[in-house]
Order: sequence, then C-alpha cells, then structure tokens
Amino acid sequence: MAEAEGISSATPTEEMNGAGNLMDFLDEPFPDVGTYEDFHTIDWLREKSRDTDRHRKITSKSKESIWEFIKSLLDAWSGWLVMLLIGLLSGTLAGVIDLAVDWMTDLKEGVCLSALWYSHEQCCWTSNETTFADRDKCPQWQKWAELMTGYTEGAGVYVLNYFLYVLWALFFSFLAVSLVRVFAPYACGSGIPEIKTILSGFIIRGYLGKWTLLIKTVTLVLAVSSGLSLGKEGPLVHVACCCGNLFCSLFSKYSKNEGKRREVLSAAAAAGVSVAFGAPIGGVLFSLEEVSYYFPLKTLWRSFFAALVAAFTLRSINPFGNNRLVLFYVEYHTPWYMAELVPFILLGVFGGLWGTLFIRCNIAWCRRRKTTLLGKYPVLEVIVVTGITAVLAYPNPYTRRSTSELISELFNDCGALESSQLCDYINNPNMTRPVDDIPDRPAGPGVYSALWQLALALIFKIVITIFTFGMKIPSGLFIPSMAVGAIAGRIVGIAVEQMAYHHHDWIIFKNWCRPGADCVTPGLYAMVGAAACLGGVTRMTVSLVVIMFELTGGLEYIVPLMAAAVTSKWVADAFGKEGIYEAHIQLNGYPYLDQDEFTHRTLATDVMRPRRNEPPLAVLTQDSTTVEDVETLIKDTDYNGFPVVVSRESERLIGFVQRRDLILAIKNARQKQDGVVSNSVVYFTEDAPQLPASNPQPLKLRRILNLSPFTVTDHTPMETVVDIFRKLGLRQCLVTRSGRLLGIITKKDVLRHMAQMMNQDPESIMFN
Amino acid sequence: MAEAEGISSATPTEEMNGAGNLMDFLDEPFPDVGTYEDFHTIDWLREKSRDTDRHRKITSKSKESIWEFIKSLLDAWSGWLVMLLIGLLSGTLAGVIDLAVDWMTDLKEGVCLSALWYSHEQCCWTSNETTFADRDKCPQWQKWAELMTGYTEGAGVYVLNYFLYVLWALFFSFLAVSLVRVFAPYACGSGIPEIKTILSGFIIRGYLGKWTLLIKTVTLVLAVSSGLSLGKEGPLVHVACCCGNLFCSLFSKYSKNEGKRREVLSAAAAAGVSVAFGAPIGGVLFSLEEVSYYFPLKTLWRSFFAALVAAFTLRSINPFGNNRLVLFYVEYHTPWYMAELVPFILLGVFGGLWGTLFIRCNIAWCRRRKTTLLGKYPVLEVIVVTGITAVLAYPNPYTRRSTSELISELFNDCGALESSQLCDYINNPNMTRPVDDIPDRPAGPGVYSALWQLALALIFKIVITIFTFGMKIPSGLFIPSMAVGAIAGRIVGIAVEQMAYHHHDWIIFKNWCRPGADCVTPGLYAMVGAAACLGGVTRMTVSLVVIMFELTGGLEYIVPLMAAAVTSKWVADAFGKEGIYEAHIQLNGYPYLDQDEFTHRTLATDVMRPRRNEPPLAVLTQDSTTVEDVETLIKDTDYNGFPVVVSRESERLIGFVQRRDLILAIKNARQKQDGVVSNSVVYFTEDAPQLPASNPQPLKLRRILNLSPFTVTDHTPMETVVDIFRKLGLRQCLVTRSGRLLGIITKKDVLRHMAQMMNQDPESIMFN
Repeated sequence: MAEAEGISSATPTEEMNGAGNLMDFLDEPFPDVGTYEDFHTIDWLREKSRDTDRHRKITSKSKESIWEFIKSLLDAWSGWLVMLLIGLLSGTLAGVIDLAVDWMTDLKEGVCLSALWYSHEQCCWTSNETTFADRDKCPQWQKWAELMTGYTEGAGVYVLNYFLYVLWALFFSFLAVSLVRVFAPYACGSGIPEIKTILSGFIIRGYLGKWTLLIKTVTLVLAVSSGLSLGKEGPLVHVACCCGNLFCSLFSKYSKNEGKRREVLSAAAAAGVSVAFGAPIGGVLFSLEEVSYYFPLKTLWRSFFAALVAAFTLRSINPFGNNRLVLFYVEYHTPWYMAELVPFILLGVFGGLWGTLFIRCNIAWCRRRKTTLLGKYPVLEVIVVTGITAVLAYPNPYTRRSTSELISELFNDCGALESSQLCDYINNPNMTRPVDDIPDRPAGPGVYSALWQLALALIFKIVITIFTFGMKIPSGLFIPSMAVGAIAGRIVGIAVEQMAYHHHDWIIFKNWCRPGADCVTPGLYAMVGAAACLGGVTRMTVSLVVIMFELTGGLEYIVPLMAAAVTSKWVADAFGKEGIYEAHIQLNGYPYLDQDEFTHRTLATDVMRPRRNEPPLAVLTQDSTTVEDVETLIKDTDYNGFPVVVSRESERLIGFVQRRDLILAIKNARQKQDGVVSNSVVYFTEDAPQLPASNPQPLKLRRILNLSPFTVTDHTPMETVVDIFRKLGLRQCLVTRSGRLLGIITKKDVLRHMAQMMNQDPESIMFN
Repeated sequence: MAEAEGISSATPTEEMNGAGNLMDFLDEPFPDVGTYEDFHTIDWLREKSRDTDRHRKITSKSKESIWEFIKSLLDAWSGWLVMLLIGLLSGTLAGVIDLAVDWMTDLKEGVCLSALWYSHEQCCWTSNETTFADRDKCPQWQKWAELMTGYTEGAGVYVLNYFLYVLWALFFSFLAVSLVRVFAPYACGSGIPEIKTILSGFIIRGYLGKWTLLIKTVTLVLAVSSGLSLGKEGPLVHVACCCGNLFCSLFSKYSKNEGKRREVLSAAAAAGVSVAFGAPIGGVLFSLEEVSYYFPLKTLWRSFFAALVAAFTLRSINPFGNNRLVLFYVEYHTPWYMAELVPFILLGVFGGLWGTLFIRCNIAWCRRRKTTLLGKYPVLEVIVVTGITAVLAYPNPYTRRSTSELISELFNDCGALESSQLCDYINNPNMTRPVDDIPDRPAGPGVYSALWQLALALIFKIVITIFTFGMKIPSGLFIPSMAVGAIAGRIVGIAVEQMAYHHHDWIIFKNWCRPGADCVTPGLYAMVGAAACLGGVTRMTVSLVVIMFELTGGLEYIVPLMAAAVTSKWVADAFGKEGIYEAHIQLNGYPYLDQDEFTHRTLATDVMRPRRNEPPLAVLTQDSTTVEDVETLIKDTDYNGFPVVVSRESERLIGFVQRRDLILAIKNARQKQDGVVSNSVVYFTEDAPQLPASNPQPLKLRRILNLSPFTVTDHTPMETVVDIFRKLGLRQCLVTRSGRLLGIITKKDVLRHMAQMMNQDPESIMFN
C-alpha cells in the first residue's frame, strides 16, 4: 500500500501552457480530481496551489460584472463568516452542555420540586426559604429517598440514596456508550489525538461529521453527568472542530480544499478551548502549541476572533450564573513569597511523575484493550467502570460531587463567610478584620477530616482515571488531571499553612510570616498543583500558563505557575518525550510526523524503495507504453501514482502521474475517444508523432502529468528529507542520482524509518 | 552578484560515507567554513544540519567521561541560561532607561534642589511640604527661571523657561545624533525592520554589536528626553536583541550557528516588548506575529521565559514607583454598551486612514532623504526638527510633557480626586456617591480648553511624527502612534459623553444611559483610539489586542479593542498591504521574503538564470576540469558557488560546490599537497582513475562537494518555488529538466521576480 500522488495538480501547469480549453475537459469528466480516499494523506502543496488557482479565477472574473465582483467579495469574507458561525455555535453548544451537565449531575441525587429542570443550586437560589448559612438546603430540593419515603435521615435513606445514585450513573453511562456504539463510533474519547492527526494532513471521513457532532454533544453530557472521572474540555475541542467542519461545507472555498479546511479547523480548536475554560488567548495558544500543524498568521488572527466570539456567546448564555467568563474564577488577596517556590517546585515534580505514571499505565491498559478480549465488550467495560466509580465515589463528599465543583472549591481561598468543611478554621473571636484579609488560623476538626477525605479522593482519582480515559465514551483528561493536582496541591498548601502558623520562628518562615499575618493561600497551591499535573500529562507549556493566567486574571501568580509547569515538563520529559496525545497517536498508528528533531545519520538512499532485493520501481515511459500495459500496471500494483521516465534505459525523470487520474483518463478515453484500443500507445510527450494510419490512435496524457514532482538526491541526509516532508507537507518524494530516477520515499516510509530509528515497532503505522 | 551556496554543508554526507577522518581536515584548514560574508543570506537548512552534527557529536562524547557528560548537560541548559541572562539584562536596561528618561525629561524644565537626581515627581513625593491637591508643586522643585531669577511668575520667566527648554532639547538631541554618527551608525531608527530582516536570515554585521547596544541605550535616553515625537518601545526591542546577541557569544552553540542565534534573537525581541509595555504574553505574540520568521515551538516557550524574567526584573526595579508591571495601568469602572461600537469602529477607520497616510508620507520623506542633499546633513536635520518640535511643543501643556505621560492621562478615567484639566467637570453638589462610580457630568471650562489644546496637539503630532521617524537617532513609533490615537479617542469620547449627558432622550442613548448613570468612559475611547492607530501603522493584530488586554487586565474591553483593531487593519489594508516596517524594509532594499501569498502564474523557467540571451551557466565537470580552469572561473565570475555536472554534453547534475570552499581547498592543496599544479585535473568523482606517472597528480575534491543540492524542474510554478524558499530558507535552488541542469534560481532572483510582478522597481533590492 505505497502512497504516491502528484505534488501539485496538473492544472496550473496546463494553464500556463495556454491549454486553457483542456481545463473544461479536466473539470468535467473527473469530478473526483483533487479529493482523497479515506485514511490517506493530503498533499499540502497541491492543495495550496489549487487554492491559488481558484483565487486567480475569481479575481480575474470579478472584473467582468458587478455580480462577479460581489461574489469575489463574499468569497474574501467567507473566512470571517465561518469564524463567526463557529464561535456562535460552539459557544452555544458549550453553554447548553454546561447547563445540562449541571442539571443531570444533580439529578443523580435529587430533584427540584418547584421546577424539574432546575439544578440544585438554581433551585435553592430561586427559593425564598434559603438562608445564607444553609445555602445548600431548601425545601424545594428533595433527595430521591426523601421524596419516596418522606424521611430525610437514617440508614435506610442513605442506602436508598446511594443505590439510586449508582443506578442513575449506570443509566447515564449505558445510554452514552450505547449511543456512541450505535450512531457515531468516532464520538468516543477526547478526540484531540485524532484532530492533531487530521490537522497534520490526514483524512478520516466522518470524524468531524454531523452525526459525530450531535452524538458527541449528547453523550458528553451523559458521560460527565454519570460521575465518571472525565472532563468535558477535550471533547469540547472535538465538538468545536465538528462545528468548523459543518460550516466549511457551506463554502466551496473550504469544503473543496483540504488545506483551507484545516485552517478553519485550527481556529475551531481554539474556540473549543476558549469555551472550555473561558480563556480565549489560552485557546489560541493551545491550538498553536498543541493541536495545529500549519498555523499561518492569518489563521492566528482568525482563531483569535473565533475564540472571542465563542467566549462571549458562552458568557451571554451565562451557564454558571456568575457572569464570569472563566470556569474557575479565583481571586487571591495575598502575594506569594520566594520561600514558597520550594513547595511549588515539589508540586511540579509530583505533576511530572504523575503525568509519566498516568501515560505509561493508560497506554498499557489501552494496548491490552486493543489486543485482548476486553476490547470486544466496550459497553460492559463502561458499565463496570461506572459502577465501581459510583460505588466508591458516593461515600466521599469530595468525589461524590462533580469534578469541576471539586476543583472550584479547592482553588478557592477561605473567606470569612465560607461554609465549606475545608474552611473550618478556628477563628480568633477577638479579631475584627476585613472580610478578605484573614490571617493564618489553626485548622479545625473539619479541615483535618477534609484532609483524610481528600487523600482518599486523590488515590481514587489517580487509579480510576487510568481505566476511564480511552473507553468508548467521550472523555476529556483536563479536568481529572487538574483534580489530581488540585487535591495534592491543597493538601500541601494546608500543610505549609499549618506549619507556618505553628512554627513562626522557623528560619524559613521568620522573614515573611509574622504571627497574625495571612501568608499562605492553600487555594494557590491547589492551582499550582493543577497546572503541574495538567502539564505533566499533556506537556503543554505556554498555553497552560496562559490559561491559568486567564483564570486568575493577574500576572501576580504567573511565576509560581510557571515554575511548576516547567518543573513538571522537565521531570516528565526525563522519562519520555511524548505527551498523552502523542502516545495515543502512536498507539493508534496514525501517520503523524511530529515536530521533534530527527538526529540520525541515515541518507535518502537508506529509506527509499525499492530496496536492494526488491523488484524495480514501477514506472511508465513517456512514449512506449500501451494502454494495456498501463491497465496491467494499475491492476497489479496498488501504488497511488507512477513516475514517468524518458525511457527505461536512461531512467531520466519527466514527471509523475496519479493512479486515480490515470484510471479516470483511460476510462474516459475508451468511452469517448474513437480509436483508442488496448494497444494504443500512451504519450506523455508534448506532441505525439504522426503515425501511419494502420497504427491505433495514440492516447495523449500530458495533461494529467505533473511536470514538477519533488525530487531529492540519494545522498540527501534523512534529517533534511524529514524537514522537507514536514515543512512542505509532501505525500511522497522521488529520489534521483545525477538525473536518473532511483526510487521513491513516501510519508509512510519516513514514518516507518523514524520508528525504526527509535526502536519502535514500525508495523504500528497502520494507515497510509 | 548571484548568490549561490550549497544547501547543506558537505559535512554530514562525508561523515555518512565513513570518511570521518576527513572531518579533521575540514575542521582545521578551513576555519571560516560555515560563516557568511556581511550582507549575505544564510542557508537555514545548512545551519540546521550543522547544529544536528554538533549535537550528535556532543551526545556521543557524553558517554565517554563524566566531564563530557557535564559538558553535554551544560550545553543542553545553555539555552535557558541565555534566556535568563537576556531577561535580566534587558529588564535592567529598561529600568535604567525609564529612570533616566524621567529625570532628564524633567531636567528640561527645572531641577530638584534636595537631590539633583530626582525627577519632578520623586522630588515632590519625598517632600513633606506637598499637599494632595497641589501634588505637582513643592519648594524643592524649582524651574530654571525661578532658580536663576528668583521669580516664579511673569512674562520674562516664561520666556526664559521656554528658551531653556528649547536649549536643553537641542543639547540632548545634538548629543544623541553625534554619538550615533561617531560611534554606532546602526543605533539609529527603531531597528525593527532590520531585526525582521536579520531574523529572516540575513547577515548585517555589527547591527547587534556591543557598541550598538551601548550607544543605542544612551542615545535612546537622550532622544526621548529631548521631547521629540518618538518612543522608546521599538528601540527597546533592538536593545534586547543586542543583549541576546551579546549572550550568544558566550556559547559556541549559538555564536557559531546563525540559525540557532536567530532563535535566541526571536526570544530577545519578545523580552524587549515585554519590558516596553510590561506585557510578557503580548511580547511573545509580537515576536511571533510581527518580527520572527522561523518560530519553532521550543522558541515559543523560551521566549515566554525570557519575557517573564525581563518583566519581573523591571518590576523589581520599579521605575514608575507604582509597583505596577505595565506602562499605562488603567482601571475602568463601567462596562461598555453595544451602541458605543459605532464610535469605536469610527476610531478604527480613523486609525486605518492615519496609518496609511503616515506610511505614505513617511516613506516619501525618507526616500527624499535618501536621494537628495537632505541625507548629507543628518545632524542638522535632527537639530532643526528638535528645534521646531520644542518651540511648538512648549506652549501647549499636552505636548510639553513627555508623550507617555500624555497617553497615561488620556487613558485615565476621571475619578473624584483627579486634578487634571481634562477632569474639570461641573459636579452636582448634592451628590454623595462612592469615589469610583461618578455619573456623567457636564463638562466645565477646563474640559473645553483642554479639547482645543488636544486638537492642536493632534495636528502637531500627526505632522511632526512623519518627519521624525527615520532620522539618525533611535526612534520608536509605538508611543507617537498611540498618542495620536489616544488624543483623537479622548476627543471623541468627551463628545459622546457630553452628547449622552445633554440628550438622554435620544433613541441611541435611551436604552443604556439614564440620567445620573455613568455610561461613557472617555478614557476607554482614548485606549481604543490608541489601539486603532497603532494597528493602522504596524498592522499588528493579535499581539496588539493582547498588549492592550494586558494593560487593562480584563477581558471586559477586549471587544471594543478588537473591533477597532480589525477595522483599522481592514481600512489600512485597502490602501496598501504593507505596514511601516515592511515599507522600510523595502525602502532599504533588504532581501526580505515576506509571508504574503504569491499568486502569479509564472514558472521556474521564467525566473531562472541564465536567461535566453545570456551566456550559459558557469559549471564544473566532475572529471575534466583542471585546477587552472577552476581558478580562471573563480577569477572571472563572482558567483557564490558552482554546479558540478557529469560532462558538458550530458549536463547531468552531480552536486554543488561553494566558491569559498573551492578557493580554500585549492589554496590548501597548492601549499600542502605535492604534485598539484595548474594542469592537475580536479576530480569530484568518488575515485580518481589511476593516471600514468607522467600526468600531474590529480586533485580530489569530492569532500567539499555538496551531493544533495536542492532542485526543482523548470515546470514548477513559481508559487511553489517561493513557498519552498520561504519554508526551507534556501539560498538557491537548481533548475533541471528530465535530469539535465538548466539553470539556477537564487533568493535574489525570487525577490526580484516578486518585485517585478508587483510592478515595483526590482533594482531596489540592493544586497544579496
């Protein structure tokens, strides 16, 4: 299954030669020219050149009439229009998902009697009988057991609530996995590895289709509501990309050009992260750093636009009811001190170690799923994991609630009016201080029991996430990773705080922590821990810090965040360079040419095919092959294209012809052109010679010949070849020596060679 | 003056062939291998391949001993170390510049008697006799006339102060221009066009040297203090890049590799903008969007680090005395309303128009300077412009003060305690409202006179900036552009505010501006105007919005800013695609291959040389050229390199040899190798044939032959060729047809062809 296709379509060359009338011939009978098969790689140079052609045509037409001029303006503005639409739709979807998740998460525990569609918070918020101290309790909100039995207390009530909680969770997850299985198998997972691969120039049909969009949106709500250890952030990127793909189909500029389509998708990915966190700049940088492959400046600006529109659409829907753009809004009142960098860096180390551990275990488990019987029963797997999660999660208040609520609480600084268990400090009754500047206090019993529960929650999250990520339901990793980090961070933060309170006189605290001062903010530790763990798993750097910076909205805490992110990345990189997305790309064998440097000393001649013992390269000659020969060649091989040479003796390269074009051209000629028979000679030369009348009519095919195939010499170092493939987005490249054709290198050959050099299993690259 | 040099050095190929011992030969006798001449283009692929070699060598050595291992670790960390150093030094320099400018700007008006080195603000701040209402007046601060004559009032005093103000201004600018002329001619201008060119792979020796750093820092202070209409932001980028270059020389990894050096410089540019505005993220995006050419992800992360270190160094110096990181810190208390988008977009249109006007006029004036006598008297020019500026600026309080103070005041919202003339509103005496939520009030006489003065200041700034930018002193454009926009914005803002106050009942105000509400913030209009004008001149987009966002620190106002920035860019782009930096690059004829799409229908064959009527390409043959032939060829031509072919008949390409290597190799052979005489045959083949003893000793030169020159076919569309040059950073590319060498295309040919296609003067490309 070698892949081989022309670098730039024949079109521009033909036009150059004044053979403009051939264009019609090419446009009409080959409706599929320029499209790709599923699981094939696109040719960026060709796509670009096709877009330039299209643009030229529109520009020259625009001078003909006012209507054409308006059409050209519309074409120029369609990019912005698509961005606007993506922003609006993905913002709306994110808002709807947020609202639905809120409601359905609470549905597991109880129901609002005054209005069934209210979540717990909304229910008590609208109630008149809610007091500030007991914000969470109001008569309108009834737990299931209370509703059924009338009692609010007692072991039976607890067990009934427990049972119904588990039942709802199982119901949600069963619904989610069934929908995915039946309607849209591509809707599972986070989608980011596949989107990375697609953006790097790979075709996966249906991955960004309408069904995937619909099913992923619905099942995402179900999966998150079921209480599994997963988040909605990664899948939101997938949803936004589906929106992008949907709107691409409205404009032929994008729907018919795979290169241009990917520009839109890059921007859509930015919009996805933008709504996931309410961080538009972070979203753009995430798309730039983590997801996109080619990111021209024009895309940067448009991504920013799409991300902003999406963020503001989400804000006007206002799903969190706090008029805030961001998912976890925090405001700290105290600065951080130099000495605190030590625990921050330790959190970074923890994040890096956890990231490595998670990636290794998760990949091992996913590999097992792929190779053993386990993979045959995805529905059962989801049911079992949901059951275990729900049963273990319910008793612990920190795992029972939704993970984003947990993170939110962990990030929070304890104000004076905070009712949370985590803020159960022993207050000094003589103190009268402003609300937002509370000195360090000794921890009360609530804090200590919270610490135990958090420690258990930490272990639970660490273990269960490994088994959750990769199941056949939509599942994001951001939120579980952040939860692990936030729990660890909060624990460390409280420890440091109590140490500082009880040991003012220790040298490390002496300088900055006088008695009665507010020196340690445990919430900040939680945030730093979250950044560290997220960094360890995804290896994001700039975008991570910027997202966190947008959450806090101040430059004040950027140094702690950065210290943790850098440490975490370094620690994790020491154990293995790839993040979770790259690991999954490799696990699935996608042909993704990553940006790492290739430093081995091989040459093009070591990689090209045919190898020494293989049969020679299948080539066509410019004026001595018959139609039958070509047809035999097409039948016998499955190469995507064939080089054309002057003659078999000289082996001097003329051009490259695509299999698909060849099939279509011969079929067309046999049907429409009289006299073309099996032993007609195929000519790729400029003029076919005048033949005696007895000879069959020749078939002239220069118009489908790509006269500018990409070549390198056999002595070219592979690092240069890899660079060329990466930067120009080639599908294949011909290898020559002193003008003679020697062989061919395809993207798949490059990937296989790179895998070999890194001692990986080259056969894992499954697609071409 | 064709440029032609091998694509990747012979080194990796040689090593591949196991000819490792030749390395020593190459390392030793050719000390200049891999360096470039001044005003030449670098070869990115070759630099990259050299760095990979170096890296391979270090990695393999690191296993030999602990010392080598430590050295390899140091090498790996040197990038971060350089970033740290750049951040520290550029932050420090920015702080020193800020302090010195503050002091010297005030020195034009008076002096602090209690401490000569105090600026006006510091002087009165430390004084005990300062009251809050009269913050600006204290006995320690004396104007010059007061000090000399003892009087504080009167026409004579005013004239004397006026005279001394002009004199100081002339003195500062004379000093600045003289220093630039005598010590560092490269220290003039903003430096950004040149840095863009350098980063795109061009060598300008000394442009980032130590002298330039020193002189630019000193003269920047002088130029800004002289009161000319220029800013320090652009030059700060140049200063930071000089720091980057300085620290590069500490590590051979960076000093010996022009490609790696440019990675450091990209990061340094980010640090420069970071300290200029206190906006680290904006700085990184500025470097990415506006300045850099190749920006790998590794650079992104490091740039961010450098930008942060620089920003925090600056903050710990605290030159503005307010513990704020940002240059113009603003905090607004009211949201904006949809209807306000109309004036915001109008400001965007103004910014775009002004940008276009400015670029056209400034370029026309600079061209005149280059071509007429004017250019011969740079010192006189500076003196005259300073004189005019100072004479016109003094009477108007808004032009007399430094431009950044002006912008700061224009951005500010009028609080209750504001003493500025711009805040002279008529207060309602019955009102008791919190300090920061003052309803709209009618304008008082102070506001009206301020409006007149601002209008005059606007005209003055618009005109004088055209003549200032481009003189032989350091001059940045950010601050003057922002000033023009801020003045226009504030005027519009006050107009809208007064309209809203007096016409509550108009339909447009009815919905959002009830009587007694605070609906219009004129300061926000100033900020939007500043963004629009800066966008119009520089065509920055994302980085502009992010810098402005970092100034306000909130997402709240990102939509107005973006609306203005987008409008301004669209309006300005309608009149001409290039920003001021590209315009200056073109004016100076730098070989900068910009990222715009090339959409013309030409082929490689139309661009390559030799042209139809020119003599054939100068080539070497692989086994039939004598030493004398080569020497003649070198003497007769000035090409940078020569293709090597099998024979003149077959013209089949073997490789490419660089002029410099050829000269060095022959010189070396003549000196050290016995038997090499003028009629020795030069062999580029793998083995020289056994010759009879009578024949002179052959000279084997395969080791300097680049066996993987980059080729395209003559039918390749130029858009593809341009893309290849841009993405791979080539110096030249050989053109073949069916394996025969036809010609060569150099970067200069590409640039000339692009200029021709755009109907520009191709001869303006001066360097190669």
